[in-house]
Amino acid sequence: MRPYELIKAKRDGRPVTPEDLRALVDGFVAGDVPDYQMAAFCMAVFFRGMTDGETSALTQAMLHSGDVLDLSDLPGVKVDKHSTGGVGDKVSLALAPIAAACGVVVPMISGRGLGHTGGTLDKLEAIPGFQVRLPVERFREVLASTGACLIGQTDRLAPADRRLYALRDVTATVESIPLIASSIMSKKLAEGIDALVLDVKVGSGAFMKRVEDAERLARALRGIGEAMGKRVVALLTGMDQPLGRAVGNALEVKEAVELLHDDGPEDLREVTFELSAEMVVLAGRAASLDEARAQVREVVGDGRAFLKLCQIVEAQGGDPDALADLTLLPSAEGILEVSAPSGGTVQAIDAEAIGLAAVALGAGRSRVEDPVDHGVGLMVLKKVGDRVEVGEPLATVHFGKRGEPATAVADRVRRAYQIGEQGLPTEPIILGRIA
Amino acid sequence: MRPYELIKAKRDGRPVTPEDLRALVDGFVAGDVPDYQMAAFCMAVFFRGMTDGETSALTQAMLHSGDVLDLSDLPGVKVDKHSTGGVGDKVSLALAPIAAACGVVVPMISGRGLGHTGGTLDKLEAIPGFQVRLPVERFREVLASTGACLIGQTDRLAPADRRLYALRDVTATVESIPLIASSIMSKKLAEGIDALVLDVKVGSGAFMKRVEDAERLARALRGIGEAMGKRVVALLTGMDQPLGRAVGNALEVKEAVELLHDDGPEDLREVTFELSAEMVVLAGRAASLDEARAQVREVVGDGRAFLKLCQIVEAQGGDPDALADLTLLPSAEGILEVSAPSGGTVQAIDAEAIGLAAVALGAGRSRVEDPVDHGVGLMVLKKVGDRVEVGEPLATVHFGKRGEPATAVADRVRRAYQIGEQGLPTEPIILGRIA
Repeated sequence: MRPYELIKAKRDGRPVTPEDLRALVDGFVAGDVPDYQMAAFCMAVFFRGMTDGETSALTQAMLHSGDVLDLSDLPGVKVDKHSTGGVGDKVSLALAPIAAACGVVVPMISGRGLGHTGGTLDKLEAIPGFQVRLPVERFREVLASTGACLIGQTDRLAPADRRLYALRDVTATVESIPLIASSIMSKKLAEGIDALVLDVKVGSGAFMKRVEDAERLARALRGIGEAMGKRVVALLTGMDQPLGRAVGNALEVKEAVELLHDDGPEDLREVTFELSAEMVVLAGRAASLDEARAQVREVVGDGRAFLKLCQIVEAQGGDPDALADLTLLPSAEGILEVSAPSGGTVQAIDAEAIGLAAVALGAGRSRVEDPVDHGVGLMVLKKVGDRVEVGEPLATVHFGKRGEPATAVADRVRRAYQIGEQGLPTEPIILGRIA
Repeated sequence: MRPYELIKAKRDGRPVTPEDLRALVDGFVAGDVPDYQMAAFCMAVFFRGMTDGETSALTQAMLHSGDVLDLSDLPGVKVDKHSTGGVGDKVSLALAPIAAACGVVVPMISGRGLGHTGGTLDKLEAIPGFQVRLPVERFREVLASTGACLIGQTDRLAPADRRLYALRDVTATVESIPLIASSIMSKKLAEGIDALVLDVKVGSGAFMKRVEDAERLARALRGIGEAMGKRVVALLTGMDQPLGRAVGNALEVKEAVELLHDDGPEDLREVTFELSAEMVVLAGRAASLDEARAQVREVVGDGRAFLKLCQIVEAQGGDPDALADLTLLPSAEGILEVSAPSGGTVQAIDAEAIGLAAVALGAGRSRVEDPVDHGVGLMVLKKVGDRVEVGEPLATVHFGKRGEPATAVADRVRRAYQIGEQGLPTEPIILGRIA
């Protein structure tokens, strides 16, 4: 089938074969299928969707457009975790050492922040000296010696996905579950993993606003994994407000360290521990989730998980002293309190607005080429359901030399809060599990 | 609204303003809006459609992307006819001189054949010497002196449409009523016409397979015309089998001349006369359709319409002797009869297959750059409802030196015929009128 016929078949809801999808992706990467045909195809997929078989075939075509790591010579089961992206999501920073301390091998390839959500690579780079660009051989060595390694995507892993994503980003074809699922899975399967845990965020600050959509995405991701013989477990977790309190790179590193000292905000602890326990079970290091949860609590409680983070940081060129003495991390120029305009109960916090306020400070990027200020960010002191008096601080703005003025950011943060009289029941942070 | 926002708005079924559409088209022509964004937009339009206001705005944006002829200094009402394309559709060759002989001014800008349908320009070029590329000044002169002039589109009329159509053609976004309607009308309105008659073909050999779709297209076209103050009348005419008998350029010129000698196949006569009569009424040359029909019969019956064709041909550099002595037109190398494989009544003739058989002979093009053999083609001797004995000729193949072997083409033609026992009622050729 020529590209034209393929676009037309998808447009009209007719089936498309794996061979045709493979030829489309190969032609796209080779430059034989022009961007305009690929854009039309993606828009047709937006409207028509894809069958499970088509989604798997697209994923495999993108996966095999580049290198696929073979980690089979390393002993142990390799399990990674992927999050669909949220605000204040520093889970990976604590989860990777926790899982590694429990005996899981964690080859983690992460991304950078773009838009209102942060990226694990930017957070890691808040640690002085930390290297996220390692040659594959060094990646293997760190994995073998510490049990976890956290790096950035290389040009050689799933290059078709990188090109396709850039095109989708400018043609309003990002928001398609089969396209999202194949993009995520082509990158993750290129890491040489045996199993994958997914954190599918759902809520106003997430890409998926409704639980049903998050479930559909989770099932699509699991379907692709299973078609390739990989076990996949997904948790749906709430993203109606930022996760934990810290939003911003060094601030989030501090909060992750706090968690590894068996402290930190309850919602962040619950999500991190539960995702870690899923990894422990998938790696065969525990017979049940309950057993895995006990192991997780143990390695956090006795300090082994924190020690593991120090080992990983050192192996990747970072300064472990900055984890012992957090004042060595980048810090803000100053701190401004955001006071409550009225008293009452926090009804809602617009997570996207909080994420964008952090970006305005310089904690994230509006464009790929923007620099990041690792010291700036926000601390969300009052969360949904908390009581607050008028004038009491809702949050603090940790501002730098560049970026939007702190008072303007404080206004953004104040507007992100809804304060009212209604009492609110505590919402669970884990909303579902697809396994 | 940026192009990205515009694509997203259309994708999500939200309204788009005339200003945004104008900026999109201008940006596309200027090269600021890349093809991939335009392709994604067209696919979104395919699924979401456009409101009447949006379709008019898109048409106007394409119309004003180039020159708009001003023929207001020429006396008389200017009326053109446009057909959505069929097989054996030589109506324009007879209609333009008929209408001109009745006093209508006919500025006709036509296209070339592509795919299974023929094009008026290719048919005109079967007449030795005929020039379809004239400078605008000569176009005006011929119009003023003869009342009709038939030329090809210039680069300066609706260039946005030409670029957009080329993109739609390779991205499977041709089949969208608002996009088709705006493409047709932007070209036609650039001709400086006062009114337009549309021949919307419907049936298996036409772009619109169902009467409902043809009606929708006709209404969309009329809506655009009315929004610009132009009167538009559409006839829906049958294209379940070729129109008339001749398919191929010189063969069709002969059949048109036959018609102008008040002879020729009944279906072709009816469609041509009725469309011509509509033009006469729109031009204010008759008070009623009945009066107009009488005028049309008169100018055909007394030879004035044939004389008008000779004048037009001479004014455009063609040899009018070739109309008097049809043996001077290009002819085939040889003729092969297609005999009926069984006796009975012709149940159906696949018009698209007949059109493609003619293309295979060299009468049309598979690709824009293919040369055309003006002498080759097919004569459809038996039409739907005709009785045929086994072995009796169904059609003749007029073959040339190039092209598919005549026997292979004869097989195509034979397969295009369905012969059965059932008697068939005569179907009307004019299926509807939208005015």
